[in-house]
Amino acid sequence: MDQTTLTRPEAETTTAAKPVILTGDRTTGPLHIGHYAGSLKNRLALQDTHTQFLLLADTQALTDNAHDIGKVRRNVLEVACDYLAVGIDPAKTTICLQSHLPALAELSMLYLNFVTVARLERNPTIKDEIRARGFGRDIPAGFLCYPAAQAADITAFKATVVPVGEDQAPLIEQCNEIARRVNAAAGREVLPEAQALIPEAGRLPGIDGRAKMSKSGGNAIPLSASEDEISRAVRAMFTDPEHLRVEQPGRVEGNVVFAYLDAFDAAKEDVAELKDHYRRGGLGDTVLKRRLEDILQALLAPIRARRAEVASDPAQVHRIISEGTQAAREVTEATKREVMDALGLFRL
Amino acid sequence: MDQTTLTRPEAETTTAAKPVILTGDRTTGPLHIGHYAGSLKNRLALQDTHTQFLLLADTQALTDNAHDIGKVRRNVLEVACDYLAVGIDPAKTTICLQSHLPALAELSMLYLNFVTVARLERNPTIKDEIRARGFGRDIPAGFLCYPAAQAADITAFKATVVPVGEDQAPLIEQCNEIARRVNAAAGREVLPEAQALIPEAGRLPGIDGRAKMSKSGGNAIPLSASEDEISRAVRAMFTDPEHLRVEQPGRVEGNVVFAYLDAFDAAKEDVAELKDHYRRGGLGDTVLKRRLEDILQALLAPIRARRAEVASDPAQVHRIISEGTQAAREVTEATKREVMDALGLFRL
Repeated sequence: MDQTTLTRPEAETTTAAKPVILTGDRTTGPLHIGHYAGSLKNRLALQDTHTQFLLLADTQALTDNAHDIGKVRRNVLEVACDYLAVGIDPAKTTICLQSHLPALAELSMLYLNFVTVARLERNPTIKDEIRARGFGRDIPAGFLCYPAAQAADITAFKATVVPVGEDQAPLIEQCNEIARRVNAAAGREVLPEAQALIPEAGRLPGIDGRAKMSKSGGNAIPLSASEDEISRAVRAMFTDPEHLRVEQPGRVEGNVVFAYLDAFDAAKEDVAELKDHYRRGGLGDTVLKRRLEDILQALLAPIRARRAEVASDPAQVHRIISEGTQAAREVTEATKREVMDALGLFRL
Repeated sequence: MDQTTLTRPEAETTTAAKPVILTGDRTTGPLHIGHYAGSLKNRLALQDTHTQFLLLADTQALTDNAHDIGKVRRNVLEVACDYLAVGIDPAKTTICLQSHLPALAELSMLYLNFVTVARLERNPTIKDEIRARGFGRDIPAGFLCYPAAQAADITAFKATVVPVGEDQAPLIEQCNEIARRVNAAAGREVLPEAQALIPEAGRLPGIDGRAKMSKSGGNAIPLSASEDEISRAVRAMFTDPEHLRVEQPGRVEGNVVFAYLDAFDAAKEDVAELKDHYRRGGLGDTVLKRRLEDILQALLAPIRARRAEVASDPAQVHRIISEGTQAAREVTEATKREVMDALGLFRL
């Protein structure tokens, strides 16, 4: 008990000094280089400057994968291995499992009383996703309600920074709207508002040129890709279908190789020159692809090695998730109790 | 540890022998004689033959009372006092508080993935209630989703008997539909189906003749009513507005005094004779009301006395709720773990 009294204030001062960031991934498939460029790289930097929580979002994954829970389960360890492989450090970042944080469900259920069905249906992200998934009128209720669940995730950690793609920004708006309503009902600011952190680089396209890279789409390069898989993926990469001979001028826009060079090639000036050259004509796809392949091989070799090492000890990964979830439980339970008390529910 | 091992099987055998019943009340106001006639009287009998859980449904009350949480909080103790006043015995019946049972929220969130928005909107009870509350398009999401939450309540206790009014029967249908879907996804029968226990007597009208008796409607006789309040309520009771003189024939249908005599007068044959007499003419309201008042005074006097005694020791009521909730937590947590494992979520 004495020790607790001695160490607590120090711990609080340390965390209070850093802004809280919540990110995470639905556990529906291993992560790929699109995740690396769009978020994992940032998270590596942020774990030094922020109190960072990474949520393995298995219950959110259920909102459109209730028919394939096995996939959701299997990918919990896969995604955690990906985190560790790229250098997420459990000593700095708390990796935790959504389905084992009851406070998230409890806050979700509370928040559903502070948002109307009409408002959820108007959410542009939800509208787009309903269309993309072909749900029609048969939207699972959990899917319609997931913005409230996401508000629970964000506010339970009192996160003030939430990295999201541009298309997800309306979800942060919705979260803040709920937070404001809860604060109004409580009569004081229990929940902080969150800011969307939208990455400068847009979303990385699939190797086939489609906007979304995904394992199920067969157009992704997973972080665990072998040397050979990387080679084949780069060779198959979509460029400019009208650029048939080296000497012809080529298009840079919509050309996946250039999109990837923009994302992964540190020599920005060289890339700018290559773009000019390609546009003028006289620069072949093979040269460009060789350059990109070298870069991707260099990027993924250590990640692949570290991933194999991590994955060889699943018990250790399990322990990391377990400990992180325990730490997250303390934070989220405290917020839940605070929200319930502030709203004035009966206290046992 | 040894003690646990020794006592557990015995406890399980005892509860397994009796069917499990879940009932409860939204904590939005003290209970009245309508609750007594419609459910409390049954619960008194059922606590000897069933494993009975009484849920103080404060989170469900929030689904249409998020603007007045103070009312929801204050009535937790009020309703618990009403239970104890009528003779609910905490040694036989587990009285527990919904907001303090995290598994109910967790199961609710899971179940929302097994029901579509369209199905929730088609639920006749929800449709009627949305109309009655004048929500229009501004239905709180929590309200639309409450049938899934109710399915969580019922199944978390593995209740197979759920006493409900006739108008609530579609909610039990919905609960069973969700249970079947969860069982199908799990590949085995994790959740039992529940049967609605619909009381023979219909709902008791308000003293003004309106179909619904409620404190907010000002047409209820609360269980804690004083002698004088009972007198005044009976005197003000709606009878047959066209029955102006004693010798005139009177209408029995829609006559609140007769509805109450049907519910509370044990001398069924006398009541049948009184109805005949009233219909023929020659029987005045005053005589009938005096008879009803005597019955209600006799019914409520001991309840009022016991209620005053119970309410004089709120710490004891608090302790009863707390212990009941702790017991309910064990049951509901076990079901939640079983459902999560059966569905195949990741296990920490």
